[in-house]
Amino acid sequence: MTENAFDVVVVGSCMTDLVSQAPRLPKAGETIHGHKFFIGFGGKGANQCIQAAKLGAKTAMVCKVGKDFFGESYIQNFKDNGVHTEFVGQASDAATGAASIIVNDAGENAIVIVAGANMLLGSADLQDALPAVRHAKVLVCQLEISPEASLQALRMARQNNVRTVFNPAPALPDLDQGFYAVSDVFCCNESEAELLTGTQVGAVEDACRAAKEFLRRGCGSVIVTLGALGCVVLQAKDPAWHHVPAPTVKAVDTTGAGDSFIGALTFYMARYPTMPLEEMARRANQVAAASVQAVGTQMSYPVLKDLPAELF
Amino acid sequence: MTENAFDVVVVGSCMTDLVSQAPRLPKAGETIHGHKFFIGFGGKGANQCIQAAKLGAKTAMVCKVGKDFFGESYIQNFKDNGVHTEFVGQASDAATGAASIIVNDAGENAIVIVAGANMLLGSADLQDALPAVRHAKVLVCQLEISPEASLQALRMARQNNVRTVFNPAPALPDLDQGFYAVSDVFCCNESEAELLTGTQVGAVEDACRAAKEFLRRGCGSVIVTLGALGCVVLQAKDPAWHHVPAPTVKAVDTTGAGDSFIGALTFYMARYPTMPLEEMARRANQVAAASVQAVGTQMSYPVLKDLPAELF
Repeated sequence: MTENAFDVVVVGSCMTDLVSQAPRLPKAGETIHGHKFFIGFGGKGANQCIQAAKLGAKTAMVCKVGKDFFGESYIQNFKDNGVHTEFVGQASDAATGAASIIVNDAGENAIVIVAGANMLLGSADLQDALPAVRHAKVLVCQLEISPEASLQALRMARQNNVRTVFNPAPALPDLDQGFYAVSDVFCCNESEAELLTGTQVGAVEDACRAAKEFLRRGCGSVIVTLGALGCVVLQAKDPAWHHVPAPTVKAVDTTGAGDSFIGALTFYMARYPTMPLEEMARRANQVAAASVQAVGTQMSYPVLKDLPAELF
Repeated sequence: MTENAFDVVVVGSCMTDLVSQAPRLPKAGETIHGHKFFIGFGGKGANQCIQAAKLGAKTAMVCKVGKDFFGESYIQNFKDNGVHTEFVGQASDAATGAASIIVNDAGENAIVIVAGANMLLGSADLQDALPAVRHAKVLVCQLEISPEASLQALRMARQNNVRTVFNPAPALPDLDQGFYAVSDVFCCNESEAELLTGTQVGAVEDACRAAKEFLRRGCGSVIVTLGALGCVVLQAKDPAWHHVPAPTVKAVDTTGAGDSFIGALTFYMARYPTMPLEEMARRANQVAAASVQAVGTQMSYPVLKDLPAELF
């Protein structure tokens, strides 16, 4: 099965989201009562993969979960969404990644992430996944696994002429400069751009300045997302930059919207390889805009049939 | 099986503890990385039941969990510890109670409790458990289920001449005064005593004053625990109060120590009914002192064979 080409291979993270809704956040030494608790599927890598799959991309996930209930559940979640799971490993010496999320009544999140098994995804696992990587159309990485593994995966993709998307999230202040040269598309949000450039990124012009800096560091193209302001697209091969506005929608839950955007972007890169990048970004904006109009993370991601036909 | 007398019946809570260890607590809007995540069995009711069972008491738990993985796991945990589970109900419309616990490097906890299924334990469930309650030697309740259910359970016990222990935890500022009259032993810690009396409780003398007030409100006996200072015991039938010091030990994790004390107390009440209450408290202090010398909550509770023979 792995000899068939995948549209999108994601090398990244899986996290079980453990969400408690409470009136406020507890202080040290304090116990407070919340009104709701639920478990969700998260992790930037898995989120992006699920969004690409929901749009119809043929996807494979390369990741590591624990040999535990949360790991088993996550594998089932991938299967339920049509994601190929041959390269989902199970570590016996670490737990499935977990994100404890407390949401207060103002809608603010306080999150503690314990990466667990995600950090054990290593070189040998990537070698095992080489047959899938080699035949992929697009490979995407983030920074919720070890940076070394991400960089190695991006290099493997490059060596096999697979297009690469790198999402430096969560941002590392001392990011290995090697990441820029292996990124066909370098896609980050305003706060990641800020941390990576050391300059404030709030407005469209700031994002454009940051994007130029990333190009200078070696990327092929850059997308800086700006939430409700849409995104800025800049390419090495094209002197003009593009501001792509986002549709105006009433957001009910923005959790995972950035991952929805990237998942959609990889879908378009794989399925419409000659489409201008700014047009892919425009369509991905619309997919992400649909995702913020429903509650939940992966649950809120739209499938093909929920979206306007003009997007396909 | 329920026609055989139980030593201890606990009507109370089950919680899945979701513990993240992180350098500090996250602020609103913040994501931080923790170094360890684990799942444990908690909830004051279940903790007390497990400690009594570990000492060799024949125990039954009356509680409600969800029809979910955490609920199934909890039932298995009771079975593994020899607790009778006929009266552990599973709600299909609420999740198993969950406590999201973030422990910082200073060892301080910030906890959000979502009671979930615990709050659905009601009158009909108590009626179902009547055969077990009627033949119990001791019944114990706390306040992590609905106060109405706790009060009804204590009344049922009283009507059947079953000795009652009431642990008003977590403390409610507007506790129904009916609880005092149905408590053979009213057992709380210093902060609960403080909240219930409206006066500061730090020293042994304060605890004694609070205990006198609880007797005046109608309890048969009062134990106010004071952490490393041990506890104060006062009985309506005996004008002398007793300060029972705790053994000096090096604590590595005090989580659940109060529940270990109460679980042990109910074991002694059931198995050594003529022992003076202050002697039961002295032995329960030693059991709780053993529990703080190991990590974890129920995991740290000593079993009979780990304890000095003079305690039995």
